[in-house]
Amino acid sequence: MKARVTVTLKNGVLDPQGQAIEGSLASLGFGGVKGVRQGKVFDLVLDGSDEEAARTQLTGMCEKLLANTVIENYQIEISN
Amino acid sequence: MKARVTVTLKNGVLDPQGQAIEGSLASLGFGGVKGVRQGKVFDLVLDGSDEEAARTQLTGMCEKLLANTVIENYQIEISN
Repeated sequence: MKARVTVTLKNGVLDPQGQAIEGSLASLGFGGVKGVRQGKVFDLVLDGSDEEAARTQLTGMCEKLLANTVIENYQIEISN
Repeated sequence: MKARVTVTLKNGVLDPQGQAIEGSLASLGFGGVKGVRQGKVFDLVLDGSDEEAARTQLTGMCEKLLANTVIENYQIEISN
């Protein structure tokens, strides 16, 4: 089973990396960019075929390792 | 208009960060993880409402700044 976990900064959390990218895009001539926020994506391959069990396990992984839940949100997508 | 650009390593490109995460997940007791690959996600806010123009502009941003197309793939999703 394959899963994708997307980790993004919560609203209101400062994102200097995103701001730097926004500045660079403007320097390169890409106008009209009003905001950039950078996040992380994890593509996992999991054993087993129980989607509910996989979701529970992935939630645990996010809470313990993949995301800092103080400042980040996570989103789990599972595909077979 | 909002857009999400997801940048992932191409198949065959070594991902030491993903391997480290895979090892950490095993140490934390999460069994059955057969592979982890880490990528990046960029959430952009763009001016204008022409989806086709936005896609062209985003492709340029990926080719020039957001992705290293030698080792990375990118995927563009646009939502209004």
